[in-house]
Amino acid sequence: MTPPRPVELAIAARWILPIEPQRVLSGHVLLVDEGRIVAVATQEESARDYAPRETIALERHALIPGLVNAHTHTAMTLLRGIADDVPLDAWLKDRIWPREAKFVTPEFIHDGVTLGAVEMLRGGITCCNDMYFYPDAAAFAYDAAGLRAVIGLPVLDFPTPYASDADDYLRLGLDARDRFKHLPRLAWMLAPHAPYTVADASFTRIVTYARQLDLAIQTHLQETRRELDEAIARYGQTELARLDRLGATGPGFLAIHAVHLGDGDRELLVRHGCSVAHCPASNMKLASGIAPVADLMARGVNVALGTDGAASNNRLDLFAEMRLASLLAKVATGDASALPAATVLRMATLGGAKALSLGETIGSLEPGKQADVVAVDLGEIDDAPVYDPVSHLVHVASRERVTDVWVAGEHVVRERMPTKVDVPALAARVRLWQHRLR
Amino acid sequence: MTPPRPVELAIAARWILPIEPQRVLSGHVLLVDEGRIVAVATQEESARDYAPRETIALERHALIPGLVNAHTHTAMTLLRGIADDVPLDAWLKDRIWPREAKFVTPEFIHDGVTLGAVEMLRGGITCCNDMYFYPDAAAFAYDAAGLRAVIGLPVLDFPTPYASDADDYLRLGLDARDRFKHLPRLAWMLAPHAPYTVADASFTRIVTYARQLDLAIQTHLQETRRELDEAIARYGQTELARLDRLGATGPGFLAIHAVHLGDGDRELLVRHGCSVAHCPASNMKLASGIAPVADLMARGVNVALGTDGAASNNRLDLFAEMRLASLLAKVATGDASALPAATVLRMATLGGAKALSLGETIGSLEPGKQADVVAVDLGEIDDAPVYDPVSHLVHVASRERVTDVWVAGEHVVRERMPTKVDVPALAARVRLWQHRLR
Repeated sequence: MTPPRPVELAIAARWILPIEPQRVLSGHVLLVDEGRIVAVATQEESARDYAPRETIALERHALIPGLVNAHTHTAMTLLRGIADDVPLDAWLKDRIWPREAKFVTPEFIHDGVTLGAVEMLRGGITCCNDMYFYPDAAAFAYDAAGLRAVIGLPVLDFPTPYASDADDYLRLGLDARDRFKHLPRLAWMLAPHAPYTVADASFTRIVTYARQLDLAIQTHLQETRRELDEAIARYGQTELARLDRLGATGPGFLAIHAVHLGDGDRELLVRHGCSVAHCPASNMKLASGIAPVADLMARGVNVALGTDGAASNNRLDLFAEMRLASLLAKVATGDASALPAATVLRMATLGGAKALSLGETIGSLEPGKQADVVAVDLGEIDDAPVYDPVSHLVHVASRERVTDVWVAGEHVVRERMPTKVDVPALAARVRLWQHRLR
Repeated sequence: MTPPRPVELAIAARWILPIEPQRVLSGHVLLVDEGRIVAVATQEESARDYAPRETIALERHALIPGLVNAHTHTAMTLLRGIADDVPLDAWLKDRIWPREAKFVTPEFIHDGVTLGAVEMLRGGITCCNDMYFYPDAAAFAYDAAGLRAVIGLPVLDFPTPYASDADDYLRLGLDARDRFKHLPRLAWMLAPHAPYTVADASFTRIVTYARQLDLAIQTHLQETRRELDEAIARYGQTELARLDRLGATGPGFLAIHAVHLGDGDRELLVRHGCSVAHCPASNMKLASGIAPVADLMARGVNVALGTDGAASNNRLDLFAEMRLASLLAKVATGDASALPAATVLRMATLGGAKALSLGETIGSLEPGKQADVVAVDLGEIDDAPVYDPVSHLVHVASRERVTDVWVAGEHVVRERMPTKVDVPALAARVRLWQHRLR
């Protein structure tokens, strides 16, 4: 008989939803050591085979993999709700870009990312995919807050206070990556802003870098009808067809929004094994349209869920996004069985992980993966009765039900309180920004 | 100089949103006496003119009129999430009606209404419009929980354990009203279930009772395309045109759902001053369609917001419903300025009050109205910064931000805890129902 194996942490929960395999386990225990998942065992197996240093028992909770926010501009939390009820074009050109030009500095990014990281962690998001300016300031803030992040290195063909032209953006972005790539919770992607803000020559350079450095590419794509019409008028082809011609498509390619897609575009996504980041709240709020998510999934495209930035949402809340994705797909297709709860929960976890080329690392509670874990209390009277915890996670639970969060085994939220960020100090800095930005 | 007037309660809050007039007041105080609003005064006026017995200062909060849930089947909380991802027809006939026939008793209604009342009160709803069985059991439970309610007296043309035929439903309903009509927080409506479950002869009797007893009529209306098509095939006219022919339309008439409306139907609603109860989550979840809310409001129809029952939502949460209504109207019309936050907040308060013929009694913080008041904490770090509290109430705040609720001046939720219901005892009863219903 072998002695029990010492492990750092055992979490017993009323339900465990590993996502892969797609089951609801009762009476099980998640075992964690050195930041990774060791096993999901029955209580009997756990008692027999493991000697945990710390044991946590959560009798009212569902334990799920951390949610993956597949698209956001995290630091825009500082602009939360500053411009509502405005279409995308006017929203960007009149409200957002002028403020960004005036205020966005490394300090803005640091404070905005810290605010967004706290909001996301408290809401059960353990990994986000960020596309914004000053990736070095962002990397520093994510590391301090404990949130896993994929940092998109932004590229634009027009100057901002951050950089002057496409080459400058690329140089600054890759420098930031060199400086911070030793941090194990960070990953990196190339992030040309959109086909309508980045020219062919720049995309060609981005594709070369992507191949040389083994970096995936993400970009906003066909978010509005007008954008698509203008692309066809200018280039004679859709944005996606143009990017395909330039060599940008491929298994790591992440199309953000992808609202307006013809049959040819959908086939391109299938053929190249691309992923889509679906952002239902943002697409609704900016009246951009409804992405054909049910059809994409039926064709086999990997779809992830994103919040977009807090200026167009106005919250970085994947619980809200999961529910919205399910409701929107049902009413858009006229099929009440479209995007059932289990499918949406998978999109928000393993779907997100795959979209960020992290499918082997996070997104499910499987042995060997990083211990990115979220405990959701389903025992509040408002949520009773619970016939099916999967349905409740999507259709009933709010993000406020998240009590505890671990990233790489580290207890980053304990009973709703972030453990690595001084929240009162952060609140004071946010108030200063608010006075300046108003 | 007159001495200060003694009043029971003064609530000072960071912001007060009276809804009527449509303003955001800072540095103001709400004064309450004998269950009614006495004044919304500046701090200076309040200190000079009033001597409150109790003063509450809420430095991070917005104070709003209690939300009005214009359509629900409250006791269906006991069936929360029992049947997801199923279209309306199969949902009703295969999942819901068989369970109702077997389990719905006065005890079921009492416990389900108590559960729903606690959920609604904690979420800032101070008045609901309930349509379900055993109105006497419901009345008893609302009175005990402290929630204001309009109780729809149900009428169907088929038997259930509650009643045998339309006359029996009417008799039982009016008996319940006679027994409980002394309770000041309750009001009553006639609630024929739907045009497809109630025949012409029954509607004619309902219209007679409505006139004799001065009761308004509410009914589910044109919720699905199929229902409308069948009505036209059977009666040669839309459901609404048929009800108009039978004399049911008029200023107190409340059309629930009203998803599929042609131009003629919309004109009928305008002409008679009818109201619509819009239930976006339910309409999306059951894939029923998108009600033309922006167009109805442009025509001058009063639109209220409802959650529908917890079996098709799955939460009685008007914060979620407000946000959804705004997002859905924007994407449905392609106009990002449709249904802005202030409009939606008005729908969920004064719009609801008017739809329930309570526009003179509740729905705004005006002197003389009932003191149905909700305090929402906008000071959590997840919600920072707050540029516009109206936007935040719709697009950022969850119902979990509600800390305190008053109905008719009574403090029914204090720091998130219901004051009139024994929550652990309720939870135990709900667990028993869950075991039986599963």
